[in-house]
This record gives sequence, structure tokens and C-alpha cells, in this order.
Amino acid sequence: MGNEGIVISIFINDFAQKKKKLNFKEKKQMQFRVLSIVFVVSMMWACTSSKKENKATPQPIGIVIHGGAGTILRKNMTPEKEAAYRKVLAEAVQVGYEILKKGGSSKEAVEKTIHVMEDSPLFNAGKGAVLNSDETIELDASFMNGATLDAGAISGVRTIKNPISAAIQVMENSPHVMLSGKGADVFASEQGLEIVAPEYFFTERRIQALKRVKESEQKKKETTATEQAFLKNQRYGTVGCVALDQNGNLAAGTSTGGMTNKKWNRIGDAPIIGAGTYANNATCAISATGWGEFFIRSVVAHDISALMEYKGLSIQEASRIVIHEKVASLGGDGGIVGIDNQGNIAMEMNTPGMYRAHVDNNGKQTVKIYKDE
Amino acid sequence: MGNEGIVISIFINDFAQKKKKLNFKEKKQMQFRVLSIVFVVSMMWACTSSKKENKATPQPIGIVIHGGAGTILRKNMTPEKEAAYRKVLAEAVQVGYEILKKGGSSKEAVEKTIHVMEDSPLFNAGKGAVLNSDETIELDASFMNGATLDAGAISGVRTIKNPISAAIQVMENSPHVMLSGKGADVFASEQGLEIVAPEYFFTERRIQALKRVKESEQKKKETTATEQAFLKNQRYGTVGCVALDQNGNLAAGTSTGGMTNKKWNRIGDAPIIGAGTYANNATCAISATGWGEFFIRSVVAHDISALMEYKGLSIQEASRIVIHEKVASLGGDGGIVGIDNQGNIAMEMNTPGMYRAHVDNNGKQTVKIYKDE
Repeated sequence: MGNEGIVISIFINDFAQKKKKLNFKEKKQMQFRVLSIVFVVSMMWACTSSKKENKATPQPIGIVIHGGAGTILRKNMTPEKEAAYRKVLAEAVQVGYEILKKGGSSKEAVEKTIHVMEDSPLFNAGKGAVLNSDETIELDASFMNGATLDAGAISGVRTIKNPISAAIQVMENSPHVMLSGKGADVFASEQGLEIVAPEYFFTERRIQALKRVKESEQKKKETTATEQAFLKNQRYGTVGCVALDQNGNLAAGTSTGGMTNKKWNRIGDAPIIGAGTYANNATCAISATGWGEFFIRSVVAHDISALMEYKGLSIQEASRIVIHEKVASLGGDGGIVGIDNQGNIAMEMNTPGMYRAHVDNNGKQTVKIYKDE
Repeated sequence: MGNEGIVISIFINDFAQKKKKLNFKEKKQMQFRVLSIVFVVSMMWACTSSKKENKATPQPIGIVIHGGAGTILRKNMTPEKEAAYRKVLAEAVQVGYEILKKGGSSKEAVEKTIHVMEDSPLFNAGKGAVLNSDETIELDASFMNGATLDAGAISGVRTIKNPISAAIQVMENSPHVMLSGKGADVFASEQGLEIVAPEYFFTERRIQALKRVKESEQKKKETTATEQAFLKNQRYGTVGCVALDQNGNLAAGTSTGGMTNKKWNRIGDAPIIGAGTYANNATCAISATGWGEFFIRSVVAHDISALMEYKGLSIQEASRIVIHEKVASLGGDGGIVGIDNQGNIAMEMNTPGMYRAHVDNNGKQTVKIYKDE
């Protein structure tokens, strides 16, 4: 019996005791009491219904991914290449969505989704990572948990198959947030993560890309528009994922091989909490991809969250301002994917394209490459 | 002849032409015109005076420094030790102030001020840096220019005498924002910065500190309150400087040796733009010092700027919220120094002390150590 039942039974009992001849004043009092109790019962009924309604509309879930932004143009694509990208994007985002649908955490969804992209040679992260100037690879990744503001990051690792998992291990099993270089490799190995030989990461495509960038650097002659677009794209390439789970927890993760031909152990925005990755249950989860230097200077991911928290902007409006006004005014380009604590999403870019995909609360999947899709 | 003169001469000319008998309507019109012109001339006069007044009140300048926050208690100090700290803090802040007073840039003031602290064995940066677990040292630094939002950072370098200068060189002479490890050492050397042998950084005090931390780790027994304070303090130690110059340009810099006994090439908040260092002429310049992991997760320096930019808070109020509410609620501690674009300053901490100093626009110098000073 609910609260309503208790109130009704008290009223009946009360009424039975008073079953006697009533004078006018007593009748009026009784009428008032009946009306009051009817009112209270109605209010309780309304509240219960509203609670039931809330139960019928559970916390929305959602997931958004990117596989890098840049000068991605239809004229430089073959149908086969495009289909291959769309296939992996669809597969990756679906892996995370299924986890969320079954009640899994946003952390698990982000990790497993990024694994799919890290394991694909198509994206500049994990297996498809680009080569440094000295023909080595260096991988960066970061992860943030919106519920606790816990975070982990690694930069410049060379032997970890799935850098996103190393970032999560740093968060969970070290007193630190960010580890780098050989130390990060040692830590990941101690944690039992899968270690691979450096050759695992090398793909013919990236070896050729490094040659082409180096040749272009040596020639220093005028390049064609296609060559310029190719060279420019060597600055980009990252994968990232943001997710909202059934408990209302947000998470964000980013993983990259950095820039082709990079020197001096350069660190981009991908492993920097606040720049490439940020998650906060109070606002949103963001993963960025673009010309890393500008994204660090603009503290992109945290700035979007701050515009939401302090100015009450929507995730779309906050993302638009940061990407199209702030980053663009410095001369930088790239994009972000984001999801807020209500499941609203943003996929914002100021480049001609960004590999991206999304599954909404109803399971509807969207995969896009070009900006104008 | 100023604008006022031109207006008056037009009026006189106009009046002369009309020097004829006027009817009532014409007289009223003329009176109205005279009054209008008197009003316009008065307004112009007022504007000119106000411009002159602005020239008489030049852009304020100011500089604030810190030499690390932590459990700095009177009972653990000797008068000699305290005097030594105060002497270097006073010397460092004065070097920067003199540069600003002569019209030098905030960048130069920050760089030269930090050199004094890096060259002193008292602070955990440059010469006084703490030792890693493997008895090496690793230095981190970052710098940001508020006028352009340009930034530079280095992490894990081992041979650069003045890491803050390496961060500035990365900003000015590389296409990158952040370099790390050996690559950053090579870059700094190529830029002609002073390179020293690793032994330069070793001080007896830090060698003993590492021994004590390692012994404590091995024993894993209950420690005294003094020992706990000592161990806790090994997490901290940074130097930083923020400055506002005569052109209204803000700059911030931070330099550190990180944590005693650190492993796995840990990176703290000091080289992270947005966490340890941030400068933006629209708001403020901030340098942080504290338990780095919490400062990265809270994106401390950028969050203070965002609270000012998006909520209109003062630098003091924004700093108070970030240090005492946000960082503290995660369990972190430390402090910041900051200066806004009007010369207002903040020296906020949630630790018992922070080595700090300030010179205001009038040249008044303040040096403090304990929180309750």
C-alpha cells in the first residue's frame, strides 16, 4: 500500500468514528477535511505518476567518435577507401554502443571503441601511427572520467599495442596522471598490458608518407595544391571517443601517433588533459583532433566545458565558439566530438572533413566523413 | 587647431553671414544652434581632458612570484634558513620589477626572474631540483604569452641549465608547443642555450632527501608527524612568475624538478599549458605550484582565467574558488600566484605556506612565506 492508501484509510477510520449527527459547523469542517484529503491524495498520485514517468524515461546513453580531422576531400578519395573508413568507424562506434546499452560504463565503452580504431591501420593511432623523423613511432593517449575527474595520460610510448589502455592504467594504478617515454612503457608492461615489437606499428603507407614529407622538406620548392594538402594532413590524425552511460557518467579518450616527421619528442594536444581530452559530469566529455599546437594554446576541451558551466551555453554553441572563433582566430584548425550529460552531442570542425560517427539513445547510427554531409 | 577650433570657426563664419535682422523664429533657431555648438564644444573639451588624464595614469605594471607551496611551518625553520629564502625571493622579484619599470616586456621579466630562482639551490627548479627514483634529475618548464596566446613547454630535460629559457625557445623557434626528453635537450642545445653536466644540478640536500624518501618507502612503518610533513613536501616544489608590463601584456612561467623519487618519467602540472601555466591578456597570468596531479585534473590556471572571462569574477575570487573549492574537493593542495590585466594580484594557497613575493606598481616589495603572514 502506497502513501495514498495510508492517507485514505486514516480518513475512513476518522469518518467512521464521527458517524453521528453533525451540526452545520461540523458539516462544514468535515467538507473542508474531505476536500483537503482529496487534494493531498491527488498531489501524491501526481508525484507517483511523475516518478513512474521518470522510470519510463531512463538516463539517455550516447557515444560519439572521431578518427581525425583535416583536408579530407572527395576528390582525393576512392570509393573503396571511403567504404573502408566508414566500415571501421561504424564497427568502432557500435562496439561502444553495445556496451552502454547493456549497462556498461562509459569508461569501458570509450576504451573498447578506441581499441578498434587503434587496431586498424587506417587511423593515426596504434597500428596505423605515423613515423617520426628518425623512423620510430611515438604514441600518445589520454583518458578522463567525468564522475570523479580522474585522469590518466601517456606520451611518447613505443611498445604498447593499445595506448588508450595504458592511459587508463596510469589513472587507476599509479599515483600519477601523466607518464612519458621509456618510463611509461615500463609502467604499462608492469601492468600486464600487451607489448608489441616496434615493427608492429609500421605500415607501408606511413613509411611512404614519411619519405614524401622528407623529400618535400629537402626540395623546398613550390608544391602543388594536392601536395600541400597531403603535407598539411601530416600534422593531423588522432582517434577519440566520448560516451555517456546509463548511470549518467561521462568519459573521454584520445589516442594518436602524432605528426609525421616529428622531431625532438614533440608532444601534441592528445595526451594533454584540458586540451585534447576533458570530461566532467557537470558539463560534457570532449575529445579533440587537429593541429595540436593550437589546441594546447586554446585549452580546447576544457574551454568548451567552461563555456557550458560558467555561461550556460549548449555543447553545440560552446564547441562552435571554441573551434570557429577561438582556435580559428589563432590560425589553427581541427575539430572535436563531444557529448553532454543529457546526451546532446557536438561534432564540430573547421576543416573540410572529420572521420566521425555517433549512435544516439535510440540506437540510430550515423557515420560521416566530409563536413558538408 | 583641434576639432573644437574648427567647429567654432564654422560657427563664427555662419553667424557673420547671417548678420542681418532676424525675425523671432530665426532668433530662436540661432539660440538653439548656439546652445548646440556650446554643448558639442564642451563635450569635445571634456573628451580631450579625459585623454590627457589617461596619459597621466600609465598602464600599471606588476610582478608576482612563488617558490613552491607546501607544509612550510615556522617550527621546521631556522632563522638562517628563513632569511636565505626571503633574500632570494626578494632578489628574484626585484630583477623582474626593474625590467618592467624600464619598459621591458613581461616575457623578459618572467624569464630573468625565474633564472634567479633556478640558479639558487634553495628551490626545486634548475640547480636545486629534486632527484628521481633512479638518482637522475628531470626538469620541466612552461611559458605563455598573454598577448598572442603563444606558449612553449619542455618536460623531462636533463642538461639545460635554465629550463624556463628552453620553454621560451620552443615557443619562439620551433613550430611546436611542447618538447620532451632527449629531443628537448637536443633542441635546446641547438638553440645555443647553456648546457651543463648532470652533476651541476645535484645538491647534497636533495641527495639526502631521496635517501630519506626511499628508506621510508622500504620501511612502510608508521612515521612521525614531522616525517609525514617531510614526505608530503617531496611532492611539491616549483618556481613560477607572472608579470604585467607597460604595454599591458601579461606573461606566466613555471619551472620545476618535479617530485622526489618520481618514477616512470612522470610529468606534473608545471609544463602543462592550462594546468600549471596560463596567460591571456583578456584576463590574467597564472603560475601554479602544488600536488601536480590534482592541478592537471582541475586545469587550474585556465579555470581561473575562464571564471574571470565567463563569470566576470575578480582574480582573487576566481583563484579562491579554484584552490579552496575545486582542487580541495578532489583532495589536492597547493597554490597559485596570478596577476590580472589591471595589475590586481592573487597569492592563494590551501597549504600552510607558499614562498612568494610581489612588487606592485609603486615599487613596493612584499615577501612572504607562511600562510598567516
